[in-house]
Amino acid sequence: MSGTLNLNSITISIDAMGGDFGPESAIPGLAIVHKDHPELRFLIYGDENRIYPLLNKYKSLSAVSQVHHTATVIKSDEKPSSALRSSKGTSMRLAVEAVQSGQADAIVSSGNTGALMALAKVVLRPLSGIHRPAIASVFPTISGTTVMLDLGANVLVDAENLVQFAVLGAVFAKVNTGKDKPSVGLLNVGSEDMKGPDHVRGAAEILSKIEFNGHYYGFVEGNDITKGTVDVVVTDGYAGNIALKTAEGVSKLSSYYFKKSIKSSPLAMLGGLFAYGALKRFKTSLDPRLQNGGVFMGLNGLCVKSHGGSDDVGFASAVRLSVQLAQHGYIKRVADEINHLLTQESFLA
Amino acid sequence: MSGTLNLNSITISIDAMGGDFGPESAIPGLAIVHKDHPELRFLIYGDENRIYPLLNKYKSLSAVSQVHHTATVIKSDEKPSSALRSSKGTSMRLAVEAVQSGQADAIVSSGNTGALMALAKVVLRPLSGIHRPAIASVFPTISGTTVMLDLGANVLVDAENLVQFAVLGAVFAKVNTGKDKPSVGLLNVGSEDMKGPDHVRGAAEILSKIEFNGHYYGFVEGNDITKGTVDVVVTDGYAGNIALKTAEGVSKLSSYYFKKSIKSSPLAMLGGLFAYGALKRFKTSLDPRLQNGGVFMGLNGLCVKSHGGSDDVGFASAVRLSVQLAQHGYIKRVADEINHLLTQESFLA
Repeated sequence: MSGTLNLNSITISIDAMGGDFGPESAIPGLAIVHKDHPELRFLIYGDENRIYPLLNKYKSLSAVSQVHHTATVIKSDEKPSSALRSSKGTSMRLAVEAVQSGQADAIVSSGNTGALMALAKVVLRPLSGIHRPAIASVFPTISGTTVMLDLGANVLVDAENLVQFAVLGAVFAKVNTGKDKPSVGLLNVGSEDMKGPDHVRGAAEILSKIEFNGHYYGFVEGNDITKGTVDVVVTDGYAGNIALKTAEGVSKLSSYYFKKSIKSSPLAMLGGLFAYGALKRFKTSLDPRLQNGGVFMGLNGLCVKSHGGSDDVGFASAVRLSVQLAQHGYIKRVADEINHLLTQESFLA
Repeated sequence: MSGTLNLNSITISIDAMGGDFGPESAIPGLAIVHKDHPELRFLIYGDENRIYPLLNKYKSLSAVSQVHHTATVIKSDEKPSSALRSSKGTSMRLAVEAVQSGQADAIVSSGNTGALMALAKVVLRPLSGIHRPAIASVFPTISGTTVMLDLGANVLVDAENLVQFAVLGAVFAKVNTGKDKPSVGLLNVGSEDMKGPDHVRGAAEILSKIEFNGHYYGFVEGNDITKGTVDVVVTDGYAGNIALKTAEGVSKLSSYYFKKSIKSSPLAMLGGLFAYGALKRFKTSLDPRLQNGGVFMGLNGLCVKSHGGSDDVGFASAVRLSVQLAQHGYIKRVADEINHLLTQESFLA
């Protein structure tokens, strides 16, 4: 089995109250995943008065789900610090605690990102030796996929943080692509050695010396993300969050232009009908819901953030991602690699 | 005339040797601009043995162009510092000097960005009171266009630099859109006040106090760039360059998916034929060449950088942008606004 789990031994804990739609996207989302993987089990946390009416529509999903009623919710615009203080008994906190206690293998939430990270840090704790947990996602590229981190957990980081991100990302890419030594690039403003901020150049120096679970490629630029130049793109949460949101925006602009063009004339609309299947595939390829799921990395437990605006399809993608990582023993692998990193003088120096 | 120049009094100086194609994109590019604006004049710097064979194809363009032979060229991969030392007599330097001496109203080059900025700083000098010249471009949005800066000239900036960028950008947006008080947003990782790096939060504090040629909107995120939330997006060169290149990459990925979808079946190709005009408009809207041109802002002279990989269409867009700014007395307007900024205590404090 080489470290992979059977799906029937996996339980995912769900904070059903997060995001714009709460249970209305979470429960139908679980139904989508359940269809493909009927052996998975779910612990669902939230308002049972909203959950049961939805869950009762899916008999077979109900059979593998346990609902835990909660009366309080962390609001999407609450500051992480204050959310943390008043988090006892909320759907989010209980769902995270289910992972800490071992009842679940991963938690998925589309709630307040800052609050979820704060809670995950306090309840699950960072892995030994990890300074800053980070958020990672998988992006589509021309040649496959790329893992990118940090997407916004840490605005200010130092060179060592970035090196740890490289290790975390390489484990993720290995699970995701099966590659033995994924290539890792540092996001920068140019590929020349002397360019860029201190923390990025410092990380480059360390990464070119140490032995780790990936292969250090060098600096990459923003356009390398979608080109698929490397398997892992490492950056700080400031540039990472801006790049992520910019990419979302450009993708939406493309869809907008596309719709406008097709609707511009009757002939175009007729042509659009003929090419319907192809154009639908095109729209699907731009669909951010299918790449949904920010993985919190470097914690003692698996936590996946679904986009707050995502519907059932998006929520299902995030749950699938959590299952994939749980199945491949992601946390244990990360812990091993971080331990290996911490034994190396060139990292500690 | 309210400060606008006649096109027949405008001369643009051209470094014809930059970018991937040198004169092969620059001269046909000038021919495109010349067709629409036959009254413009050009000073062309570069290797006459490559320029004349191209220029001779366009009789009427030749009549408004003066070629200055240069034997040396700044290479695209040369470090700015060493490029500067050996820049005497190069096409780039002479083209910039033509603006300094008043022979030309603006210079356009598709050469080495770092070298061009270094040369422009030394030859044209920053405007009095400007600490850091920046690079700005116009981006398409769902509702129109947005000016964004800095796109890579300054990796490290402080709050006051960002405030100056806001002023520079607002003048650009005013010329570009005609709006009297363009809205200005600071690019950040979230819209809450307490988020983001120090220099961004510091700039927010100053911008909300001072009186300037724009209206301070607040923080914006990466997806606001293409949404058109504000007329001007202000950021440092690190995040700005990464956002710019990420946007380029996503735009290319969209085009790639689109082509792949249309070629996926004979029916789709037939539909594509019917919708040919509309789909061509779609591709045009994604065409980065039509938004080509990085404007160097805060200098005592107009300098526009054309993308190194751009062809004649792209080069023509950059030249058009330089003409638009020259025509509206951009440099004088910026100088006035910066002077106004520097008289305000809340900026200097």
